[in-house]
Amino acid sequence: MKKDYDGLWLKRLPAALPPCGTSAETASAELTAFFAGRGAGETFLLEPDERLGEGCRITKEAGVWHIRGGESGLLYGAYDLIQALLTGRDADGLTSSPRYALRMLNSWDNMDGSVERGYSGRSLWFEGGRFEYDPERVRYLGRLLASAHINVLCVNNVNVHAPAQRLVTDLLPDLAAFAALLRPFGVRVMVSVDFSLPLSAGLDTADPLSPDVLRFWRETADRAWRAVPDLAGFLVKADSEHRPGPNAYGRSHAEGANMLAQAVASYGGVIVWRAFVYDCLQDWRDTRTDRPCAAYELYQPQDGDFAGNVILQVKNGPYDFQVREPVSPLLLSMRKTCLALELQLAQEYTGQQIDIYAMPPMWREIFEIMPADRIRAVAAVSNLGRGYFWTGHPFAALNLYAFGRLAWDPDTAPERVTDDWIRLSYELPDPDRESLLRLLLDSRNVYERYTAPLGLCWMVTPHTHYGPNPDGYEFDLWGTYHRADRTGVGIDRTARGTGYTEQYPEALRALYEDPQTCPDRLLLFFHRLPYDYRMRDGRTLIQRIYDDHFAGCEAAEAMAETLKALALPEPDRREAAERMALQLKNAREWRDVINTFFYRFCGVPDERGRTIYS
Amino acid sequence: MKKDYDGLWLKRLPAALPPCGTSAETASAELTAFFAGRGAGETFLLEPDERLGEGCRITKEAGVWHIRGGESGLLYGAYDLIQALLTGRDADGLTSSPRYALRMLNSWDNMDGSVERGYSGRSLWFEGGRFEYDPERVRYLGRLLASAHINVLCVNNVNVHAPAQRLVTDLLPDLAAFAALLRPFGVRVMVSVDFSLPLSAGLDTADPLSPDVLRFWRETADRAWRAVPDLAGFLVKADSEHRPGPNAYGRSHAEGANMLAQAVASYGGVIVWRAFVYDCLQDWRDTRTDRPCAAYELYQPQDGDFAGNVILQVKNGPYDFQVREPVSPLLLSMRKTCLALELQLAQEYTGQQIDIYAMPPMWREIFEIMPADRIRAVAAVSNLGRGYFWTGHPFAALNLYAFGRLAWDPDTAPERVTDDWIRLSYELPDPDRESLLRLLLDSRNVYERYTAPLGLCWMVTPHTHYGPNPDGYEFDLWGTYHRADRTGVGIDRTARGTGYTEQYPEALRALYEDPQTCPDRLLLFFHRLPYDYRMRDGRTLIQRIYDDHFAGCEAAEAMAETLKALALPEPDRREAAERMALQLKNAREWRDVINTFFYRFCGVPDERGRTIYS
Repeated sequence: MKKDYDGLWLKRLPAALPPCGTSAETASAELTAFFAGRGAGETFLLEPDERLGEGCRITKEAGVWHIRGGESGLLYGAYDLIQALLTGRDADGLTSSPRYALRMLNSWDNMDGSVERGYSGRSLWFEGGRFEYDPERVRYLGRLLASAHINVLCVNNVNVHAPAQRLVTDLLPDLAAFAALLRPFGVRVMVSVDFSLPLSAGLDTADPLSPDVLRFWRETADRAWRAVPDLAGFLVKADSEHRPGPNAYGRSHAEGANMLAQAVASYGGVIVWRAFVYDCLQDWRDTRTDRPCAAYELYQPQDGDFAGNVILQVKNGPYDFQVREPVSPLLLSMRKTCLALELQLAQEYTGQQIDIYAMPPMWREIFEIMPADRIRAVAAVSNLGRGYFWTGHPFAALNLYAFGRLAWDPDTAPERVTDDWIRLSYELPDPDRESLLRLLLDSRNVYERYTAPLGLCWMVTPHTHYGPNPDGYEFDLWGTYHRADRTGVGIDRTARGTGYTEQYPEALRALYEDPQTCPDRLLLFFHRLPYDYRMRDGRTLIQRIYDDHFAGCEAAEAMAETLKALALPEPDRREAAERMALQLKNAREWRDVINTFFYRFCGVPDERGRTIYS
Repeated sequence: MKKDYDGLWLKRLPAALPPCGTSAETASAELTAFFAGRGAGETFLLEPDERLGEGCRITKEAGVWHIRGGESGLLYGAYDLIQALLTGRDADGLTSSPRYALRMLNSWDNMDGSVERGYSGRSLWFEGGRFEYDPERVRYLGRLLASAHINVLCVNNVNVHAPAQRLVTDLLPDLAAFAALLRPFGVRVMVSVDFSLPLSAGLDTADPLSPDVLRFWRETADRAWRAVPDLAGFLVKADSEHRPGPNAYGRSHAEGANMLAQAVASYGGVIVWRAFVYDCLQDWRDTRTDRPCAAYELYQPQDGDFAGNVILQVKNGPYDFQVREPVSPLLLSMRKTCLALELQLAQEYTGQQIDIYAMPPMWREIFEIMPADRIRAVAAVSNLGRGYFWTGHPFAALNLYAFGRLAWDPDTAPERVTDDWIRLSYELPDPDRESLLRLLLDSRNVYERYTAPLGLCWMVTPHTHYGPNPDGYEFDLWGTYHRADRTGVGIDRTARGTGYTEQYPEALRALYEDPQTCPDRLLLFFHRLPYDYRMRDGRTLIQRIYDDHFAGCEAAEAMAETLKALALPEPDRREAAERMALQLKNAREWRDVINTFFYRFCGVPDERGRTIYS
């Protein structure tokens, strides 16, 4: 293993990477080396069957492992077999096929080497305005992604900063060289493009209905697919947070996206169009505009207008990766549009890879609500960087691994994927493994309780988004308000309020509409309530706020004790301990600031007499 | 006049700058050119009299202007005469001498070209890690400073960022070349130095009691004064906001400063030691530590310990250039220490050269309280930059000009210096000149009323310090709290509270101690009061908060109307109008955010039924 990066969950595979070749050749080389390393005389047979596509079937026949699958299926089957053997699972009879055809990682990497909302060091492949990387590390990344069945990597930030526009012009040879390193692992690259690119190329418009603009994009696509024949497509953030888009020309998003889709269609390319569009210059005095309503209001009327190779990529919640949001109603309502669900591995609002926050339980809740038929893809904002641990916190690698596994098969239990990751990553005594499993599975609850237990969002430090600042975004222009005062807190998003609940299918609408049925964890997302509101458990709202924050902090303290006792190897042990010290500080700060913030409004002391600072 | 910068208040002087020479030669050249330009056959005679030092005496004898003075006195006399003639004042019999020997401009310019808290463009003399400037513009700056009688320019930020350490090592030739441009205008340069410089030079300590360290600083001083024989001295920010200092070695600030003073004494150099020291890692839960108390607590016990060529530089208020602060008690209590009063021209918390904020009325209040005998110097944080207008807003040049004039003679009336600046800067019809005069003189009141009318500090947006964010610093570590809750607001700084009032001489202590005598504008600086507190004018505290914010905003709107009607020349007119539009936006934001912030706590509506958003 190289010294400048950790092997993550594949650290027990042979250090030597397979030679560059087809996916099937990669599968063969990986299995050969793996079995050679085990020295038990095991053998295998790869049986190509293109009908299975990415799917695979593993059997053991007369002592020989048979893997059947299409080109990628053989690759995934090989890694599945290796992982099953490493974790002590039975692989014989294992059949597997993907729920979602595209399992995409969105990197918010800028070509200057910085990573927007990146907490794991600098970009793994950009620096100083160009591609700059350790090819072996990129190939190792390919191996990691393949083992998790992730098959698309978008290399650059959705906010396209110079010189990233050039990734589809004169930097195409560099993109092609990079793509070639990942291709043996079944990973195709994607590029974020700027909707106004025609302007920087000298055209006087970027109007999607202009023939010149279509011609420009056709030529751009020609060049791009000539250089990278298996390019997955373009990712576009348009008319969003000051990015250019079709609205500037009076055109709809469907018109904008379809023009691009037409330009890439002949190559089998897709246009992934982000639906993260809202008024980011809102006046806080305006109580009628409600940001969570925005995407549905914009896109729902366009359902059916989008071309077949456009994928509308929708964040899991209507806001922006807050600790707790209801599922975006847009995901539940676009019946004639290909959708991608967008998740975030980078823990922008959930601890920034300092605080432990294992995501599988959250994703499970989301996938359970997803309409199986209309979601074509799953995307996740990456948590990767050039640091030793790739993902900042060594445990945050779980989120990368589990994302791929759940995007492949959303029915995978969070317990199972987390346990697999632990077994692959660490050779721990059984009680330690079980402790770590429980710690990880509960980590989201802990974080949620000390930060934002009842669905209140945005009480974070502006810009950095780490740590509490209850009014930090309250008088700002981002549409992010809690409107706490001496009588109560929250925004009424029911039919009597902003009407957001009406965007949901009837069952969910009815559930959320009534505070008596609305889940506690979303109560203040949907309702404005007085501090003396009586919760279903009999406690008042304010007492519940206090209780949750105290309990969350205590749970973090217990977590620290558990962690201390684990027989983790170095440097993981030291790294996790250092981050845990910061997490405890953060937890205490959240507990005290939020409790004080509300105490100052309501003047109600804690029933149990615990310290709330004045 | 050069096209890339405005001539500010000297735009009516001949464009040609005097040749490099002594101050007396500069005086002679300026007067010769000025009188030639007027073509009225006026003559003058310079009569050196070193006994007058910087002072001067102007008489008109038999139609000839006589100016008597020391070397600098002749220079100042020349500019005084020119300005008197330009403004239509009688100069005959004018006698003038400085109250403060050092009238210093502190530039927060970094060598990368940025300016900390600079709102006027990039540095006038640094760029890309080195000196880079237009020599003619620097000489023009010298002329401006001389005309305002400013005689020291500290060239680099008190936070010494690399490579500014090298200003006293290998960059000395560049410093000397820069100093040579200003010398003809009686301006000496000063340099900010890093207390830990010995470490970066390879010593293993910066302990001020180490003989090696003293030797190092002696050698540094030798080199510096050899390169710049009239160097004014070193400016030091030590043990402050994470800067290194003597405390790291268990030494007092007097020990640290005196060691440096010893090193520079033989050159007549001074050590200007900033007293801006407080706990910048405070816990907001800690209500006993009160940041305004910090400097007095640290330095008062060391009164008498500082060497004669150390000047302790104290900000005008105990916080940090807030809209309204009481005078720092340190300035009133150090009887055996040379002091410098530090003001800020850069309007960090007072509008950032977007909002109009003329400072002479504020300074007049401060100077009236200053003990004449112990203040040796006045320093101001510069508002200069490379923009066309030098000071961002064209009217902000008044603050630069007036600073010099008031540091020379603090008894100058704000009305007089402001009127002089207007007459020099603009040739306006009398009613317009009077309108502008009233607008400027009232501008501070207007700004104060819409932002922080009762002495509440720090309700500003973190980091940028522009615009309202009432809780922005409330749970932070900077010691900047208002502790508003549903019952009241403010910190009790009386003997019953943090005891800060006890740092004042008796008369002020008694004045501030009692809310019935404490000036309204400092009421919430010194006292914690309930919203229904009855002010001396009969209004409740909360109604007064609302009234002031409404009134301040209305006054800003009236100001905008006044400005619109003024016959200002271009581009000043357009520039001022553009900034006024931003100021109005800012004023409305302050009014509404602050009123809403308090309304949410107290629930008391405005008596007059004006809109307060919920």
